[in-house]
Amino acid sequence: MRLSRYLPVLAWGRAYNGTTLTNDLVAAGIVTIMLIPQSLAYAMLAGLPPEIGLYASILPIIAYALFGTSRALAVGPVAVISLMTLTAASSIAPPGSAEFIAATLVLALLSGLMLLVMGVLRLGFLANLLSHPVVSGFITASGLIIATSQLKSILGIKASGEVMPELVSTLAANLPQTNIPTLIIGVVSTAFLFWVRKGLKPLLISLGLKPRTADLTAKAGPIAAVAVSTLAVVWLDLEAAGVRTVGQIPQSLPPFTVPLFDAALWQQLAIPALLLSVIGFVESVSVAQTLAAKKRQRINPDQELIGLGAANVAAAFSGGYPVTGGFARSVVNFDAGAETPAAGAYTAVGIAIAALFLTPYLASLPIATLAATIIVAVLSLVDVKTPRHIWRYSRADFAAMAATVLVTLLVGVEPGVIAGVGLSLALFLWRASRPHAAVVGRVPGTEHFRNVKRHTVLTDPRILTIRIDESLTYLNARWLEEFVLEQVAETPRLRHLVLMASAVNAIDASALESLEAINHRLADAGVSLHLSEVKGPVMDALERSHLLHDLTGEVWLSQDQAFSALLLRADEEDAPQAGSDTWMARGLI
Amino acid sequence: MRLSRYLPVLAWGRAYNGTTLTNDLVAAGIVTIMLIPQSLAYAMLAGLPPEIGLYASILPIIAYALFGTSRALAVGPVAVISLMTLTAASSIAPPGSAEFIAATLVLALLSGLMLLVMGVLRLGFLANLLSHPVVSGFITASGLIIATSQLKSILGIKASGEVMPELVSTLAANLPQTNIPTLIIGVVSTAFLFWVRKGLKPLLISLGLKPRTADLTAKAGPIAAVAVSTLAVVWLDLEAAGVRTVGQIPQSLPPFTVPLFDAALWQQLAIPALLLSVIGFVESVSVAQTLAAKKRQRINPDQELIGLGAANVAAAFSGGYPVTGGFARSVVNFDAGAETPAAGAYTAVGIAIAALFLTPYLASLPIATLAATIIVAVLSLVDVKTPRHIWRYSRADFAAMAATVLVTLLVGVEPGVIAGVGLSLALFLWRASRPHAAVVGRVPGTEHFRNVKRHTVLTDPRILTIRIDESLTYLNARWLEEFVLEQVAETPRLRHLVLMASAVNAIDASALESLEAINHRLADAGVSLHLSEVKGPVMDALERSHLLHDLTGEVWLSQDQAFSALLLRADEEDAPQAGSDTWMARGLI
Repeated sequence: MRLSRYLPVLAWGRAYNGTTLTNDLVAAGIVTIMLIPQSLAYAMLAGLPPEIGLYASILPIIAYALFGTSRALAVGPVAVISLMTLTAASSIAPPGSAEFIAATLVLALLSGLMLLVMGVLRLGFLANLLSHPVVSGFITASGLIIATSQLKSILGIKASGEVMPELVSTLAANLPQTNIPTLIIGVVSTAFLFWVRKGLKPLLISLGLKPRTADLTAKAGPIAAVAVSTLAVVWLDLEAAGVRTVGQIPQSLPPFTVPLFDAALWQQLAIPALLLSVIGFVESVSVAQTLAAKKRQRINPDQELIGLGAANVAAAFSGGYPVTGGFARSVVNFDAGAETPAAGAYTAVGIAIAALFLTPYLASLPIATLAATIIVAVLSLVDVKTPRHIWRYSRADFAAMAATVLVTLLVGVEPGVIAGVGLSLALFLWRASRPHAAVVGRVPGTEHFRNVKRHTVLTDPRILTIRIDESLTYLNARWLEEFVLEQVAETPRLRHLVLMASAVNAIDASALESLEAINHRLADAGVSLHLSEVKGPVMDALERSHLLHDLTGEVWLSQDQAFSALLLRADEEDAPQAGSDTWMARGLI
Repeated sequence: MRLSRYLPVLAWGRAYNGTTLTNDLVAAGIVTIMLIPQSLAYAMLAGLPPEIGLYASILPIIAYALFGTSRALAVGPVAVISLMTLTAASSIAPPGSAEFIAATLVLALLSGLMLLVMGVLRLGFLANLLSHPVVSGFITASGLIIATSQLKSILGIKASGEVMPELVSTLAANLPQTNIPTLIIGVVSTAFLFWVRKGLKPLLISLGLKPRTADLTAKAGPIAAVAVSTLAVVWLDLEAAGVRTVGQIPQSLPPFTVPLFDAALWQQLAIPALLLSVIGFVESVSVAQTLAAKKRQRINPDQELIGLGAANVAAAFSGGYPVTGGFARSVVNFDAGAETPAAGAYTAVGIAIAALFLTPYLASLPIATLAATIIVAVLSLVDVKTPRHIWRYSRADFAAMAATVLVTLLVGVEPGVIAGVGLSLALFLWRASRPHAAVVGRVPGTEHFRNVKRHTVLTDPRILTIRIDESLTYLNARWLEEFVLEQVAETPRLRHLVLMASAVNAIDASALESLEAINHRLADAGVSLHLSEVKGPVMDALERSHLLHDLTGEVWLSQDQAFSALLLRADEEDAPQAGSDTWMARGLI
């Protein structure tokens, strides 16, 4: 049992049979066809030779199949991680150089080790620091940068830069050098791939294919674009006309590589590797959860860290570069009927066969076609609906998202993630430090107490009830003291203060100390402090403290009891002869 | 009105009269007597010439009197800030050197500017990041370091270091050089001052003094120790016997100084200045709040930032060093009857007179006596009760406190504060990321719903109700998805999932997206999602979102309604002919 928690293959492997095998093989075949052009394209995006994209799709998939918990997740090179790899490794050496490739291996190893450590220590919750608006903003901005950077390959010109302003200005400067045959291939490929996404499936259905078959057939569109454009280059000798192609790709299984153990390099790449790991993990887990839920299955996020960690370590030792679970390919894998992670292993075999036997045919594949597959893929990452929803729902969350987008576009991908995380946290702390609280009074004729500012309620100048709508922690402990003392300063006749704790889910040591301070300060001012409607777990904790012993007032089970009893008490203190009937007459009790 | 918010002197100055004047003058006299030895001692602790302590007690007090909101806070050099000044400036130049003194001026200016900026931008809430356990641990550890560092002056030997291990080892190494006359002065002074704190007041009361007079007279103890030990040095010519004294102090008003505007120096001192500002502010505000509450007055924390900022800027331009509101002197000021900040201004005049006319008499004051006043003062900062209380109340808060103490003692004061803040935050985020939630069922015969693990309650395998005991934010959004999907995966017959939101005070954009994801994933699995007992403000926000529109289930006012209606619905779906009587018979409705 224990072992199969860390090696999920032991659990699903036992139930493996002929049907599962067939389903997995079909899915693997479809995913392999989709993955070949994608792997080449993303390696190019990362500034790496195309074969590295294939290598990164072989052993990492097998490693994930052994350790991962998602049955449909397809691991390999993805667009955003490729961009982050390019950014990080470019700071070490120019893209494509031997030092650059060495740096990407170190990135994969570091990222893998970090994910493994987080998995073993169950630190998956750290990924929580990335709020949805920040992730969404980051992915959108990265998609825009990637699409813009690929325009150079569509135009057949040079451009450089990792931020929008530089990319756009170098593109504009080199625009006159546009290569017309390249542009034609690029535009036609892009248009064809967009049409494949939108128009091919309905067409196939109208031709009589079943929706699912039509859907999966449409996924082969990119391979058709690759085949047709390669043939066009060969037949029309477009290389002579200046169309750049992929060139010779070695025919080989993944090589065994050993990442450099260079302390200075590791230190330089540590932060980029961390950011890349966390972004990759967040994206991958959200894909895996979505697919698992469709079949009422579960994934284990801490074990997912281990699966992705193993995949990246495998990438580092087999000539790959950082990988994670991809959205599009996982959905295809799921839709094609993959039932177990074995489908991933069969995909790996498919890619290995391609790396061994198919590469000679890819030498004349135009780079513009690969750029087109990237552009079509990443533009689906650009999310225009979410910002509008977030704007409507919460201006603060929108601000965090907008800041992430702007910093990512204008300063860079790493500063973008860091700014987003920092802003989300600052916003959260700011909110937590000024929670909602209300002075409440009795709704006439009921046992309910409501905000005096929103409802017509009964109150008494000698009794003040404050309802606190938040857990009390060190972040709002000081606010609590200020808020309570402010109310007391404004209520000169006050004798009893009640804190209504119906929405207080926890009180930490700082807030406890603040409550004790409030108790003492109110005592100095002749006011007693009461608590009402304290929740069970909070009361359990308070019983381990001095507060209940020192409290000048009482702890009341209900606010209604507290108010009624304190009214009588204040009344008796004022005029011992008066009975409770005056209060009943006034409707206060 | 607007102006008097930023210049509180305009408000209290108008009501100033003869009685207030008398009360303020008496308080000022007592505080002046207490402040003279303290100022000299703390300057020495900060590694500065003694007169700088006097200068730091003149203009800063007046600046605070103009801008501060506390009526009794006494601003000036304090122990912990002096230690932090020593630590920060030592990294620039050796203590006592001209560069060192220049660095302390820059520290005061930077700290003043930071406080002013925080005040104007109303960033006082940033001080919330220091939790009570962290502050308490930091103050205790600083007190221990300060007391240990002063042992060298009591023993008349040399010692160095800013962390405990180094301090103790250099003290031990130099122990053989102990100067006996110095040791006698040091031990007698320390013993006398401890007796003054504990035994003098009861003695004076038994001699017939009123408690308040006895209390205030006892505060003059340090000045007696100063006078007697100085006379002893002069009469017995102890300087010849190796007793180190304060030496010549220039007779002068505070000089006009201009802090260096050196970008590199400012950058080096920025972090220390920030830490020092925040620690000083937190300590000062807590003193000011305690005293204000005793008279049902209020202070304004954002304006306090401006008051303390002005005081530090004043210190920077008048030959002082960083200052803040001191606990002991403020309490004395309050007890002596200070009614307005004018008492502070009169104290400043008193100290100025001392700086002009009294300094020649202090030349033979033994440093051991000043060390004794520091030791007695800071040992009261060492808090042994709080750790025990915190240990009982919360192990997590205790861990943050213990880490702060250990890092402060072993690594240094700045790493101590940073470690404490980091740990508090990590702890808070960790807690916020895994909130309490419970599957609940109906308590038989009632409308109440309780945790199935704690109570015998009625449930139905087709309906699952989860009560979430925390606001939903990006920190727990992922946890929410996992928790809900886990429950669903374990409940194969499930058809209706109800999230009971009675303790949810807010839902941010990330959590909203998670709820939408849960809604869709449950729909894929054939389960409808319901909400119950949603609070007003949360419902207001949700109405601006898509969730309510897309929700596969309903929003129920009460959990009771939800459960009853869904039982009937599930029943009708299962067997359309059955009526609700079966459920009534089973006691579920």
